[in-house]
Amino acid sequence: MRNLRIDGTRLWDSLMQLAKIGGTAKGGVARIALTDLDRQGRDLFVGWCRELGCDIKVDAVGNIFARRKGRRNELAPVMTGSHLDSQPTGGKYDGAYGVMAGLEVLRSLNDLGIETERPVEVAVWTNEEGARYAPAMMGSGVYVGKFKLADIHNLKDQDNKRFKDELERIGYLGEAPMGGREIAAFFEVHIEQGPILEAEGKTIGIVKGAQGQRWFDVTVTGQEAHAGPTPMRRRKDALVGASRIVDCVNRIGLDFQPGACSTVGHMQVRPNSRNTIPGQVFFTIDFRHPDDQRLTAMKAALEAEAARICQQIGLTLDLKEIWHQPALLFAERCVQAVRSGAEANGYSAMEIVSGAGHDACHIATIAPTGMIFVPCADGISHNEVESAMPEDLAAGCNVLLQAIVERANAV
Amino acid sequence: MRNLRIDGTRLWDSLMQLAKIGGTAKGGVARIALTDLDRQGRDLFVGWCRELGCDIKVDAVGNIFARRKGRRNELAPVMTGSHLDSQPTGGKYDGAYGVMAGLEVLRSLNDLGIETERPVEVAVWTNEEGARYAPAMMGSGVYVGKFKLADIHNLKDQDNKRFKDELERIGYLGEAPMGGREIAAFFEVHIEQGPILEAEGKTIGIVKGAQGQRWFDVTVTGQEAHAGPTPMRRRKDALVGASRIVDCVNRIGLDFQPGACSTVGHMQVRPNSRNTIPGQVFFTIDFRHPDDQRLTAMKAALEAEAARICQQIGLTLDLKEIWHQPALLFAERCVQAVRSGAEANGYSAMEIVSGAGHDACHIATIAPTGMIFVPCADGISHNEVESAMPEDLAAGCNVLLQAIVERANAV
Repeated sequence: MRNLRIDGTRLWDSLMQLAKIGGTAKGGVARIALTDLDRQGRDLFVGWCRELGCDIKVDAVGNIFARRKGRRNELAPVMTGSHLDSQPTGGKYDGAYGVMAGLEVLRSLNDLGIETERPVEVAVWTNEEGARYAPAMMGSGVYVGKFKLADIHNLKDQDNKRFKDELERIGYLGEAPMGGREIAAFFEVHIEQGPILEAEGKTIGIVKGAQGQRWFDVTVTGQEAHAGPTPMRRRKDALVGASRIVDCVNRIGLDFQPGACSTVGHMQVRPNSRNTIPGQVFFTIDFRHPDDQRLTAMKAALEAEAARICQQIGLTLDLKEIWHQPALLFAERCVQAVRSGAEANGYSAMEIVSGAGHDACHIATIAPTGMIFVPCADGISHNEVESAMPEDLAAGCNVLLQAIVERANAV
Repeated sequence: MRNLRIDGTRLWDSLMQLAKIGGTAKGGVARIALTDLDRQGRDLFVGWCRELGCDIKVDAVGNIFARRKGRRNELAPVMTGSHLDSQPTGGKYDGAYGVMAGLEVLRSLNDLGIETERPVEVAVWTNEEGARYAPAMMGSGVYVGKFKLADIHNLKDQDNKRFKDELERIGYLGEAPMGGREIAAFFEVHIEQGPILEAEGKTIGIVKGAQGQRWFDVTVTGQEAHAGPTPMRRRKDALVGASRIVDCVNRIGLDFQPGACSTVGHMQVRPNSRNTIPGQVFFTIDFRHPDDQRLTAMKAALEAEAARICQQIGLTLDLKEIWHQPALLFAERCVQAVRSGAEANGYSAMEIVSGAGHDACHIATIAPTGMIFVPCADGISHNEVESAMPEDLAAGCNVLLQAIVERANAV
């Protein structure tokens, strides 16, 4: 296959033009789902796609599909896409890059006069961030049947505004069928949102899959007492127990390398008074591993260690798993298409596992799926300082173009 | 000296009558300083003292002194007392017991027809709890010159009500001189507010002094990052560091036995989000020891260990000592008077060090001082379930009577 190239300057200009919609003083973007700004972002994308001659469809959760015809339109399309909504103090690239890269692929296919066997579609998934209406990854979740449309329609935001009403208000309550059709392959290009590519000096992350996750809520209960007159040997200090479990969580993450991540991100001490021995501590645990068996072993290690720690101090332990997302392996043919695209362009690349969730993780449950990561500065995202290099963004888009053309001609 | 006895039933009845003023549905007391309920409690006490023929004086911070004449009224008085204000959800005994026991001593001296060489005074110190106007132990602190009267007068509560105005409103802005006179001896009887007497099966705690205290504010700062895509070896997790310091604080308390107490009571994690690695943790440390040299060594151990822990993880450490209260040893002649009083009555007794602050700790800076502790159920106080046995309260009062008579006849 000849080495196709997208127009990196045009991609960058489109991203920057889009970033003005909801642009913040600190250089970030606040374009929350189903706001007027979300509508403006969608309208800009749809207008650009119509200029290319695309057919636009919108479904009942607001997902947009811009379709470029193939030679054989009865075949299942190859699809790419991401999301246009942002965090309340988000950056210019998270989501927006994946949509603008899809648009740039369509433009490049037109410029290059390439006709693919299969149609190519660019999808905009509604409300990936979940900032205004939870859960996150909403539009893709409804599309694959993970969430019920009626439940989502009835969600209310903090101002008591219903999801369906707001979707209709911005003009994106559509009538296209919700899922139910074959997708030949789905690709999503995204900034890494982690520091690995930058640290390793690689341009392209060939995403093998997504980490499995297990989330826990933990409450340890001891005896609240006065910090002065209560001798050490008579104490049941819930924070001492919680602290030992935090250290143990960290050790489990180190013990289950490579690939394991373990985090206590939230903690609440009760009564949280300087001169009172804490009687109760609530905290959360986030375990991740690309290998489900190893992830399950991490859970077993936690349960044993936490019980031992609490028994030593005389605390009661309430450890509940509140969420389990099995590890996800992307389809080898899609991973291979990304790998070939990086090789064809001569980009430095490495295999990587996604630590964050993406719309692609939902689509992977109904269609062969792959992802492409590019570096972002210091691995920072969900932040107005989020930053990526134009040449890296162009590289990711070139790989996307190669992968799409390859899969769109495989019949 | 013959074995004098107070009237335990009368003491109990007075305590229960006082506890109705501000009594709560759960059996506790809410009688906050300078409220109408505080006035009612003070009025009840003053009325009972007037019935005994006492002379009443009130100073400009609202401290009340009820004086029973001695044979030689030019001599410095022996004084006892405590406070009538309570925590917002306090108990019947904290403070109130010390005042009612003083009253019962005066009543018993009258009943027994005992004339002492020195006058005997019962003091009510204003606002010991500090719940409405901080700091705590306020009236005794102004009396000994630790706090400035003008500063205290200008304090405002949450409703913007000035201390002096509220004191005048309840009729206790007095004109008696603030301190400046000799006190021959001061005794305060109090529930232990800790579990030691109950655990050891002793009726009387002969209080040798009060623990020294060092309080610290600690901030550890690392790098906030996404819990998913950030590899373990690249993390600077502030909560892992804080947790190791909490465990280290606990270990220092155990290492410096006997007498040491060490507590982390308050902790705030930032940003405190389930799937974000904590970038910063603020927490407090409360160190106590009856021996100042050992207390200083605890501080040195903390500084060395905390620095080592933070260096290992790559965190910055900000450790500030915000308060230092040197250890306090009560005057041996007063401690001996308490010991003799317990022996004369045949009560089981043990030496003990106060872990909490009391008005007596302030008075000890200007006069020979002693304290008597009696057990409270499960060591619990500052709580509506605070509970003590009538026979233990009577025992403490009998010891107080013995100690007062002994010191009031020592000329």
